[in-house]
Amino acid sequence: MPDPGNSRRKAPAIVILGAGFAGMEAAEALGRAGLPFTLIDQNNHLFQPLLYQVATTTLQTAEIAAPIRAILSRYPGADVLMDRVIDIDADRKVVTMTNDSIPYDYLIVATGARTSYFGNDALRQHSFALKTLDDAVRLRHQILTAFERAEISRDDATRRKLMTFVLVGGGPNGVGAAVATRELAARTLARDFHHVDATKTRVIIVEAGDTILPGIDAELVDRAMETLSAKEVEVRTNAKVVAITPEGVDLEDGHIEAGTVIWTAGVAVPDLAAWLGAEADKAGRIVVGEDLTVPERPNIWVVGDAARSLDEQGDPHPGLAALAKQQGRYAAAAITAACHGKAERTPFHYSDYGHMVPLGRFAAIAHVKGWKLSGLIAWLLWAFVHVLFLMDWRRRLMVTLTWIWSLATKRTGSRIIINRDGVELPQPDPAHQPTDAPKHGVA
Amino acid sequence: MPDPGNSRRKAPAIVILGAGFAGMEAAEALGRAGLPFTLIDQNNHLFQPLLYQVATTTLQTAEIAAPIRAILSRYPGADVLMDRVIDIDADRKVVTMTNDSIPYDYLIVATGARTSYFGNDALRQHSFALKTLDDAVRLRHQILTAFERAEISRDDATRRKLMTFVLVGGGPNGVGAAVATRELAARTLARDFHHVDATKTRVIIVEAGDTILPGIDAELVDRAMETLSAKEVEVRTNAKVVAITPEGVDLEDGHIEAGTVIWTAGVAVPDLAAWLGAEADKAGRIVVGEDLTVPERPNIWVVGDAARSLDEQGDPHPGLAALAKQQGRYAAAAITAACHGKAERTPFHYSDYGHMVPLGRFAAIAHVKGWKLSGLIAWLLWAFVHVLFLMDWRRRLMVTLTWIWSLATKRTGSRIIINRDGVELPQPDPAHQPTDAPKHGVA
Repeated sequence: MPDPGNSRRKAPAIVILGAGFAGMEAAEALGRAGLPFTLIDQNNHLFQPLLYQVATTTLQTAEIAAPIRAILSRYPGADVLMDRVIDIDADRKVVTMTNDSIPYDYLIVATGARTSYFGNDALRQHSFALKTLDDAVRLRHQILTAFERAEISRDDATRRKLMTFVLVGGGPNGVGAAVATRELAARTLARDFHHVDATKTRVIIVEAGDTILPGIDAELVDRAMETLSAKEVEVRTNAKVVAITPEGVDLEDGHIEAGTVIWTAGVAVPDLAAWLGAEADKAGRIVVGEDLTVPERPNIWVVGDAARSLDEQGDPHPGLAALAKQQGRYAAAAITAACHGKAERTPFHYSDYGHMVPLGRFAAIAHVKGWKLSGLIAWLLWAFVHVLFLMDWRRRLMVTLTWIWSLATKRTGSRIIINRDGVELPQPDPAHQPTDAPKHGVA
Repeated sequence: MPDPGNSRRKAPAIVILGAGFAGMEAAEALGRAGLPFTLIDQNNHLFQPLLYQVATTTLQTAEIAAPIRAILSRYPGADVLMDRVIDIDADRKVVTMTNDSIPYDYLIVATGARTSYFGNDALRQHSFALKTLDDAVRLRHQILTAFERAEISRDDATRRKLMTFVLVGGGPNGVGAAVATRELAARTLARDFHHVDATKTRVIIVEAGDTILPGIDAELVDRAMETLSAKEVEVRTNAKVVAITPEGVDLEDGHIEAGTVIWTAGVAVPDLAAWLGAEADKAGRIVVGEDLTVPERPNIWVVGDAARSLDEQGDPHPGLAALAKQQGRYAAAAITAACHGKAERTPFHYSDYGHMVPLGRFAAIAHVKGWKLSGLIAWLLWAFVHVLFLMDWRRRLMVTLTWIWSLATKRTGSRIIINRDGVELPQPDPAHQPTDAPKHGVA
């Protein structure tokens, strides 16, 4: 078999772990600099900000995901391994995967964040996450089948429960998913179901803190609250979840009967700290220096959601895609400089362009360069930026056409339910297993 | 809850089982006639002729599947139940589902065919089917991960095995999928993999009979064989499969080492005959009269792949989408006539417009109204007809754009690999479980 362009044996060996925004940006920068590198990930590259649109049936999976090796195929020195990292030996400078191990001279750790249940596995068992493409596909299946089950149910209480969706966590992901779920029900599904009235679907955001969208300007949060109210999404703040059961959510001071609970709260990184022998904050993020390297490991950069980095004021950076990209680019530049014999390093500086939160059809809030935008203008900006940052022109075209079509027709294009052979779909008594991870095949 | 347009209680009750081509065509005809009916299916409506393009990563699932209730939403009398039929009582005129039962006056059975392993479950265990959307998504995952596993393998024999794909059954489905798999490897994947040479991928069609594409004009089959040879798809006729193992396929007179075996041979219908108290042929299809009803059950029509019907010469009809549609329309017309008090029935007549087999990029064979076409002209006809018969204009546009883009760029747009949390993807020793149904999440 040929082995063209494979430069694992040439020194220095550069290894990137993870193909999210930070890892891909680092890979592209190294590729442009003509340096060979190895990128290890188990999955496709995923455009996470639009993930909730897969769960709520507007977009299809391939519109927001792409094979890493296809994206990097223009760089002959890019070696992509689809494998799972199980250890890092920072002394021997070796990364161990399930199937192999690989030495490195420079290592970029961009392993990202994952859904955290704060060690409470019962929270995971009866809820749906929204972090990976698989999560989104499972959640889509759950939402669609909830309405199908309600349609064939003859019990009003069961129907009401099946048509109640709770989102735990009032961050941008949870809020975006909540509005999209409510709009899917009230706009799209309502006219296709005869026995249930999908416009009566309840979507409830449950947030432990004083306010949703923590960290975002209070005036914009107020405008977001108005939009949520107009779109009939309920918000409960200061509501702490103590348990999630097949019956719904138990709060410290009450209970919400719900067929589907979506858990968006909490991020944490797996056993990175132990591997690297480094300090982590309580969310599991590795504490890095101002050059994003691990203390006493100047050849290991940690970037993106896996890192806890501080700005010039000593405050932690926000967990945004823009930050991850800038950090990935920074690490790649530092390695490129080192490969060319330049040892000195300048501290990482984050250029803050602001942030946005989508609020469904023709609504969003945006805080950009000091400007506070909301409503249609914020939505147009959000839509423009998110189409622009997709992987390629084909996906930009497909997503734009899909959005225009969905907004014009009130339909969504990806309402796919698939059963595996022999598995029956609707449960006679949904009380018994409504929110378990679906056993059905999904696509 | 409102119950608009639900006419289950009005006599006569019309029930359709299955939402394939036959069932949907019957439903649309009844809807146009203004008659209320209930359609029961567990899945979406699927445009099966393009299913192999989902498995081979050209199309996405939502481009060839659509929610039944969305398609039928324009008919107020259409009641769609997503449920699984578990019995039919032809004496009491009741259909029993997992969750409910429903009486009928007129019943259209359009439950289709499924993959058959001739009672040999070992054949199923180590092979992939290509009949349902779930099948296609599993197979896509298998094909893509086979190359990923080959890329990280260091053993030449393992690589060769992973890059060998066997299609059992030389019917149109098997042939179409074989060419598409070979083109995916040689055109699209070849440039993205560095350690394996995907142009060396072997795709082998194994057919028990004398020739592939039985029932199709011999001259056209010869032309198809030439195309397959030019596209480097291997064909083995008179090759009877005796076993499928994790190592590959055992033939009566040999063995093919292969990492992926796709089983397209054999169709059969589940326990319909017992439910209906009717005679079935050895493929499990119900023997119907010339008016497509079950003998002595003039209110039960069996249509599409579930039926064994004969043409005017006494030969069985071919299992084509066009036949299924005409039969569905015929049954709906007979019921409409009966509802208007017309009892007499004319025999079903099949209008044969011919058939086509796709052979990958810019190649097909077509036998249409006596014309024998092959090559580009046949491919253009095939592409035009298949776009035309898609469910709606949006899918027509999307599929057309996707095909133009794929043909122009040699890329395919739906190369999606997803892992469920905690499941590692590549197997260290693929000999142990290469062709098992993947445990990973799929989309």
